[in-house]
Amino acid sequence: MKRFTKDNLISKGKAYNRNFVNCLSGFKSLNLIGTINTENNKTNLAPFSQVFHVGANPPTVGILFRPHTVERHTLENILQNKCFTLNHVDENFYKKAHQCSARWTQSEFKATGLEEEFLNDFKAPFVKISPLKISCVLKDKITLAVNETVLIVANIEEVWVAADAVEDDGFIELNKIGTITVSGLDSYHSTSKLDRLPYAKPIQKAE
Amino acid sequence: MKRFTKDNLISKGKAYNRNFVNCLSGFKSLNLIGTINTENNKTNLAPFSQVFHVGANPPTVGILFRPHTVERHTLENILQNKCFTLNHVDENFYKKAHQCSARWTQSEFKATGLEEEFLNDFKAPFVKISPLKISCVLKDKITLAVNETVLIVANIEEVWVAADAVEDDGFIELNKIGTITVSGLDSYHSTSKLDRLPYAKPIQKAE
Repeated sequence: MKRFTKDNLISKGKAYNRNFVNCLSGFKSLNLIGTINTENNKTNLAPFSQVFHVGANPPTVGILFRPHTVERHTLENILQNKCFTLNHVDENFYKKAHQCSARWTQSEFKATGLEEEFLNDFKAPFVKISPLKISCVLKDKITLAVNETVLIVANIEEVWVAADAVEDDGFIELNKIGTITVSGLDSYHSTSKLDRLPYAKPIQKAE
Repeated sequence: MKRFTKDNLISKGKAYNRNFVNCLSGFKSLNLIGTINTENNKTNLAPFSQVFHVGANPPTVGILFRPHTVERHTLENILQNKCFTLNHVDENFYKKAHQCSARWTQSEFKATGLEEEFLNDFKAPFVKISPLKISCVLKDKITLAVNETVLIVANIEEVWVAADAVEDDGFIELNKIGTITVSGLDSYHSTSKLDRLPYAKPIQKAE
């Protein structure tokens, strides 16, 4: 195994360091975040790999935003009208999802051809073909002193997902709906289920 | 598609709600966190799916801890001696990784047979067979007002990974080293690379 120090990495240049470090945490979730600017009704759609579980009751998610990137419109819209959608991405439209990260002047929905959808009077747009859609309402905003990244904490209001992907105990079979995962900044991956394991107890040695 | 509201979910019981909501963010990273209690030299190893990228320069990660769970020893050890390791998990030992979540009285290394390793005088133990190992030093601790979860922010010091898994631009081919991903609380998945996509520009419509 080769050893890399943080000084090694930085000496190899910004792009190298960014690619390397973005892979270190492991595979990441991929969501398209749908928002709307309520002043001009312009919708926005942006891919994020920094959405994570914060709590189950009430259902709560966190999203980490870099303040000076193309994702800024998403953050501004969320702070403006307090609501957004999360939309899982499958193999059929991950290239369009990636294309949403370009600096479009028009709405990313129009630019990429991903159709927008409004459900149940929620103020932010969903991605019509997404296999799992979530409406979220802003709860808190925390700026991390370490590097000025912004952590948005939000409550989940409603979820739309194929009923047959939800098992009797509430587990959602993400493989069944085709949700993909991302590594680093730009590498997309499908998954194969190895196993669901039972609650671990200290009875016997693991296999 | 079926619609689930947060009231629907909570009415189905705690376990159902927990399983469902833990799947909503999408696929998650899986890391074994290695720590040591420096008062009695007892090592600890615990699986976490809440490790995420915070920044590339300096290399920074975040971990979200629920305060009243079995993972508490990990948090206490980190707060005590400021250091810990992250260890990716592959198909060969994910069952042992899962077994580390049981409430053992002895060190999880001993209980599961995962061999511990100390590298370069770093105070916390690594998992010898892990394909990607990271040493981290505590930088900040933030308690989220929303539900008292604790966000640990840490700097990455050193990384050990197979040299041939690192591409010329710094990207790490996690598929090559076998890193797996997790969904919900207990579902493990291998991945297949679909594609790495170039930096998106607003030139032409996505395919």
